[in-house]
Parts: sequence; structure tokens; C-alpha cells
Amino acid sequence: MLSKSQQKLINSLQNKKYRKKNGLFVVEGVKGVSEFLNSKYIHHELFSTEDLFSLPFVDITETDLNKISFLQSPNKVLGLFRIPEPKNIVDLGLIVALDNVRDPGNLGTIIRLCDWFGVKQLICNEGTVDCYNPKVVQATMGSLTRVNINYLNLSNYLEMTKQPIFGAFMEGENVYSAELPRSGILVMGNEANGISSEIEKLVSKKLSIPSYGSVETAESLNVATATAILLSEFRRTTER
Amino acid sequence: MLSKSQQKLINSLQNKKYRKKNGLFVVEGVKGVSEFLNSKYIHHELFSTEDLFSLPFVDITETDLNKISFLQSPNKVLGLFRIPEPKNIVDLGLIVALDNVRDPGNLGTIIRLCDWFGVKQLICNEGTVDCYNPKVVQATMGSLTRVNINYLNLSNYLEMTKQPIFGAFMEGENVYSAELPRSGILVMGNEANGISSEIEKLVSKKLSIPSYGSVETAESLNVATATAILLSEFRRTTER
Repeated sequence: MLSKSQQKLINSLQNKKYRKKNGLFVVEGVKGVSEFLNSKYIHHELFSTEDLFSLPFVDITETDLNKISFLQSPNKVLGLFRIPEPKNIVDLGLIVALDNVRDPGNLGTIIRLCDWFGVKQLICNEGTVDCYNPKVVQATMGSLTRVNINYLNLSNYLEMTKQPIFGAFMEGENVYSAELPRSGILVMGNEANGISSEIEKLVSKKLSIPSYGSVETAESLNVATATAILLSEFRRTTER
Repeated sequence: MLSKSQQKLINSLQNKKYRKKNGLFVVEGVKGVSEFLNSKYIHHELFSTEDLFSLPFVDITETDLNKISFLQSPNKVLGLFRIPEPKNIVDLGLIVALDNVRDPGNLGTIIRLCDWFGVKQLICNEGTVDCYNPKVVQATMGSLTRVNINYLNLSNYLEMTKQPIFGAFMEGENVYSAELPRSGILVMGNEANGISSEIEKLVSKKLSIPSYGSVETAESLNVATATAILLSEFRRTTER
């Protein structure tokens, strides 16, 4: 049975402040919870309408699940997991860095892309949406368990790194003909404003995705789709 | 001033049935409305908190705008536009075809990608979300004005076409080494189930995007990001 205090706690975890205070975040659905249980993440409590994982759980009704779920169509189980201590940054291989990416769906999609393209390290500036936001967790489809994510002062980090720094700009070099290395940092910017001028100064090579549309065409691609195309190019040209 | 019947009409347009009945759809925000006004779409009525376009408009308050807007942060204006008669299909060049893409954000992103990569024709099976859904219109960022979209029986269409038919599958040929033509149809499938077996039979070449992750990696990419990578490959290899 679901207690009032459990319900209150879970609802509060939609808010970053309370996730931080409690050190907990929410994962939903049979597949999502199962992926987190099979990872290094430590589960704190499971709320479920049936026995799914042969683990202790709080037996709740569908009505209770609707009260605590962030989803429109909840799927049997909601798990609370502990937010881990940040791991050290692996400053090696291809790294993605985000400068004020605000949309949870975009961050989730980018984490999934990192997983797909074997990017082990994602760096977010402090203005980027929290990766334990329930919408981000949902959009990652479990990839959050396989990508190391650090939040830090991005300009300090970029000033210190010895890796080449790439950034997506409208006026950059055509990514299809650019020489791309195996190791480096790819910076992607804010949905509306792109990469900030502070970070732009630190970029060693500007890249752009050519458009094949007419003159009136879209001014830019969505940040997640642009990340998809750029990561695809980095891997295509260096991993064969 | 906003009348009760206007408010009722606009709210009803969230629903496909009422969009069809009234032949109208909603565009929001200064930039979006401006793009549609500068296109072949015909505007029916504008509701605005100020005079933005030197066109007749219903002068409304911020409070009224909040009552009719589908957005969390409405931006000054909401326009009603007429749903045009479907144009003839341009069975030429690169065409994207969608098989049961359900998420409005994904369809909107795919329309924006078509615009970017110069794909003039998008074909949707009848199970694909309506392109005049307000969330789709919003996500296209104006690209809806530049891409021809037809809803039809996809398997009938694919049976009739003389163009080669490509589809994204897990077990397809590596897209980075596949021979891709300038003209053809690229079929993308449903978010959860991929391309249906009925359509799969009609695909002449299966393509896949290689993964560079570990064995536990994400099983698939989001349909919009996969479309981004595949369209990028079609253009990269044929348009230089």
C-alpha cells in the first residue's frame, strides 16, 4: 500500500531541488526499471502493481500508480533509484559537451545517441537540464545507465583540456569534407541561441551540416538531430 | 475581444475530427504565424495581443491568449489557417514515407529534416499522426510550409512506384557503405515496432545505421534521429 508520505516524496522528485535533497530519482515502466536494476545504479524502493523482479516491492493499485506516475500511460512499476556520486571524467575518445541544452527530450535523445555511437562521456554545463529529470530518464530508454555524465563549469573544462574542440555552427566547415579525429570534444549549444559566445571562443574547429533545401529553408536543425548527424560523421570517418 | 464561440472553435482544433470538419488548423507565435502568412497557406483569422502584421486581427488580452493557446508560454499571436487540398504527389527525387509514426514531436522533426535536406515530398500512411496537429505544426518551425505531405494507403503506393524503396532495419546493409541513389523512397517505421511486415515486403533495400556502443547498448535509435542520419547519408553521397 502506498502511504501519503511516499506519494508526497515521489511527487516532489519532479523537482530538481528535491531530487538533490533526497538523492533520489524516478524510473518508470517495466523495461526502464529492469535496465536500471541490471546496472550499477542502486535501487532505493520499487512501487509495483505486480511482482516483476523477485525483489521486495511496495504492492500498489493501478489507482495509486496513477497518483505517483509522471507518465500519461503508466506501465506497472515505478522505481526510486539513488543519484550516484559523479565519476571522474574520462577525457579520452570522443566526448560530447552541452552548452545550455534546456529541453528534457533533447537531452534524453542525445544521451541515447551517445550510447549508440559509443560516446562514454557527456559533459553538461550547469545551465543544461538535469539528467535525472523524469522526462530525460524516460527519453534515454536506459542509455543513462551506460553514459558517464558530469555537470561542471564548461568554459573552465574546455580551457584545461588538451583535446581538439569541435562545435556546430551555421558558418562552420562542411562536416562531410572536414578531417575528424577519433578523440575530441563535440560541443552542442542551446535550442534557441546555439553555442554561447564564451564557449565559441574556445572552439578550435567549427563544423556545419550543409542544407540542401531552398533559400527559405529552415534556419537550423534541432539540436538532437544535429548531434545525430555529427556523431554519425565522426564514427563513419574514423571507425572503419 | 474573444467570443465564447471563437474560444470553443479554437480549443476544438486540438482534435483531428474538428480540424477536418472546419478545414482549419492552428499556428502559434510571431515567427510561426509570420512563416505561414508568407507561404501559400491561406489565413482564416488572427488572434493577437498587438498589431504585428498590418492585417485585420481580433484584438485579445494575454488572459484570452492563455485560454486558446496550446503552448505553455504563448507568444502574442495565434492564427487559424485553412487546411489545403492535398497536392499531387511528386514521385521524383528523394521521398520520405512514414509507416505509423505516432509521436507529434517526431513527425514535426522529420518534416523539418525533409526541409533541410531538400526532400520535397513526404508520404504518410493513414496511421501516422496528422501533420496539422498543433504539436506537429509547432515542432516543424515553419518547415510545414515547404514540404508537400500526402496521407494515403502506403502499401498501395509502394506497389505502384517505379522508384527503389529503402527502409531502416536493424539487420540491413551498413548505410555508410551502401550505394545510395539520388531518387528513391526512404521508409521509416513506428516508434515501438519499426516498419510493419506488410510494408517490409515491399522494401527493395534494407539499410542500417551501425552502432559503436557496447553489447548492452540501446536497441534502436529514435525514429527522428535515425531519419536525420539516413537523409544525411543520402545527400552526402549523391549531392557533391
